[in-house]
Amino acid sequence: MAKITAVSPLAPAEFPALPVIEGVKFATVAAGVKYQGRTDVMLATLTRGTVVAGAFTRSATRSAPVLDCQAKMGQTSSDGAAILVNSGNSNAFTGKGGVASVEAITAAVAKVCGIPQARVFTSSTGVIGEPLPHDRITAVLDTLAADTHAEGIDAAAKAIMTTDTFPKGAAATVNIAGETVSIAGIAKGSGMIAPDMATMLVYIFTDAKIEQAALQKLVSASNEATFNCITVDSDTSTSDSLIVAATGASGVAVDTDEGFADALHGVMMDLAHQVVRDGEGATKFVEIAVTGAASDADAKTHAMSIANSPLIKTAIAGEDPNWGRVVMAVGKSGAAADRDLLSIRFGDVEVAKDGWRSESYSEEDAAAHMKGENIVIGVDIGIGEGAATVWTCDLTHGYIAINADYRS
Amino acid sequence: MAKITAVSPLAPAEFPALPVIEGVKFATVAAGVKYQGRTDVMLATLTRGTVVAGAFTRSATRSAPVLDCQAKMGQTSSDGAAILVNSGNSNAFTGKGGVASVEAITAAVAKVCGIPQARVFTSSTGVIGEPLPHDRITAVLDTLAADTHAEGIDAAAKAIMTTDTFPKGAAATVNIAGETVSIAGIAKGSGMIAPDMATMLVYIFTDAKIEQAALQKLVSASNEATFNCITVDSDTSTSDSLIVAATGASGVAVDTDEGFADALHGVMMDLAHQVVRDGEGATKFVEIAVTGAASDADAKTHAMSIANSPLIKTAIAGEDPNWGRVVMAVGKSGAAADRDLLSIRFGDVEVAKDGWRSESYSEEDAAAHMKGENIVIGVDIGIGEGAATVWTCDLTHGYIAINADYRS
Repeated sequence: MAKITAVSPLAPAEFPALPVIEGVKFATVAAGVKYQGRTDVMLATLTRGTVVAGAFTRSATRSAPVLDCQAKMGQTSSDGAAILVNSGNSNAFTGKGGVASVEAITAAVAKVCGIPQARVFTSSTGVIGEPLPHDRITAVLDTLAADTHAEGIDAAAKAIMTTDTFPKGAAATVNIAGETVSIAGIAKGSGMIAPDMATMLVYIFTDAKIEQAALQKLVSASNEATFNCITVDSDTSTSDSLIVAATGASGVAVDTDEGFADALHGVMMDLAHQVVRDGEGATKFVEIAVTGAASDADAKTHAMSIANSPLIKTAIAGEDPNWGRVVMAVGKSGAAADRDLLSIRFGDVEVAKDGWRSESYSEEDAAAHMKGENIVIGVDIGIGEGAATVWTCDLTHGYIAINADYRS
Repeated sequence: MAKITAVSPLAPAEFPALPVIEGVKFATVAAGVKYQGRTDVMLATLTRGTVVAGAFTRSATRSAPVLDCQAKMGQTSSDGAAILVNSGNSNAFTGKGGVASVEAITAAVAKVCGIPQARVFTSSTGVIGEPLPHDRITAVLDTLAADTHAEGIDAAAKAIMTTDTFPKGAAATVNIAGETVSIAGIAKGSGMIAPDMATMLVYIFTDAKIEQAALQKLVSASNEATFNCITVDSDTSTSDSLIVAATGASGVAVDTDEGFADALHGVMMDLAHQVVRDGEGATKFVEIAVTGAASDADAKTHAMSIANSPLIKTAIAGEDPNWGRVVMAVGKSGAAADRDLLSIRFGDVEVAKDGWRSESYSEEDAAAHMKGENIVIGVDIGIGEGAATVWTCDLTHGYIAINADYRS
């Protein structure tokens, strides 16, 4: 039973208009894997020669479909490909039965689509530890395969939702030497959202023509600065998956094109931010920008320590410019810092400088910034050139209500 | 303004009867550092030759009094010593003014007690980033020093409280070759408790006779398995301090006595558990016991990942035997694990075994365990001999109410 919640107050006004990506077709169906009265399986078919890259959870307890996808990355093939996703059951911590489910689904998709099994990528999201009733999925594959169409991405974004309060989509078009390349992506999740162990899944499609290795390089690099820089509750899912498919249908080669790299990065960032905006109970969208650290890695360690601090997240919920808690989070992070060189700002308001409250500090100005929906916390460590920016949301009664006032 | 909360439902029925420790005297006073209408400064004077050991926060932004105490550890002296603690202001992130406050207080205590300044240990707990009005403390030192008495430890436990809902004390007596050695300790705090950046402070006194190095060794070892094994909200204070003073007044040498080591360990464990029992908003006391890890360090990493997971802490608050979230927390911890060798129990109920739900799993039995006040989560990683146990509390609306429904 998925919990029904109101739409996040941080949700975009509407689902964006996503361009049709030549070479990709979508179909969705209500297979009744767990949810009733809604679609819960989506199939994306990818034209011959499509190149696939990805990034996956580093959890030591990651799910069978994640392990299967990871094993299939890096290949090049002139065959078609397919992505099949179900919601309602994550097929995680399901033992050998979980592996058998992946085998059954990928074999059936391969057969119905006429492609090699090694070109079928599958994701599952939802409750953990329950056997996946994969026969409910294989039973509808003929229907799904017969129903694919190029305009189905909006429906696909809805079919993969679990406790999400809104579907997530983003797109970009790039002009390369007079030709247009399109990118369209969808995502679900908001960290390890509950109550049923949901996850973050992202699928991005483009008609660009690109080598697999070049695409993987772009995806890995952007992933570090987008999806790997968001946190809702510090809890990492067993199923997080990002898959990017380039059909090449535009005929435009983008292997070394900066405009394409920037556009792909922008789509990934947009989707990552939407995941934070759907964080359980979220009422504030928070950017943490750390500069002056000993290294970029140290800056990210500080930024994540701030972003994951329950005391900072509750202070933000309470609209409290409690910079002392930021000092605390920098101190506990384990990365290098010097208390007496630290400076902190909330929005444009300098609150602390050189190890003490700023001389120009105005409690009134800082409090005014905290009343907004978009909060920016800037921290300069003061000892080097390392920088990182991460995004999170606040921690509210809504989070507790969704995760504690409920028995699975 | 300290928030007044009801006494934690997990509080002990009463403050324990603590033995008088020969060679230690206490005094308390209402100095008005911040709080009104209550004591907020405590002085403990320690007889000549008292040996002092300690453990302190590893925060990179730790406070001036912590740095001063750390610099004074390890010395041996035949002089007397003193501990002075104020609540209401942590003297943390207060720049050079903070150092000057420590200097002023320790100099004044040294003078009034007739001891070297190097033998004065001071702690401050409360709001961060505000100048400590140390003149309010030095102004009452004559009164304090004239008022010390051996029976004052109960009052001392109250004077050091900030947002604690109950004073914390523990004691032990050990019979060593027919002679009695006594240990009495007090503590305050519950992690980085809010709203005003409070901290964990612990003071333990004994009349045992012991070399400084031997005492420090015992304290460091027990600290690792007691105070360093608790967490309320994963947020580390800038002021955490543990000071253990052995007056030697009993004349009983304990340098290599296992009975004394065990008794000291027991007092530290008792106080550590009381800190968890006063965790903000806590309704459940939770033990996480991890076995079968690759090393003890890995076991602690897994245990702390479980203990700090908001999704697990909210599941416990909701009395939900959500073992999938335990799988998640093991997976994200970064320590070695094999999904298919993992087993999990809630109390005596085996919920997962060898990478899947246990065949004997009873949702009813597991749910019954979760309804209790004391929750035990046992996790066997299944790959080695490493073990660790940590303690935490649940995450409730009470925590959010205390930390978000409030503007400092």
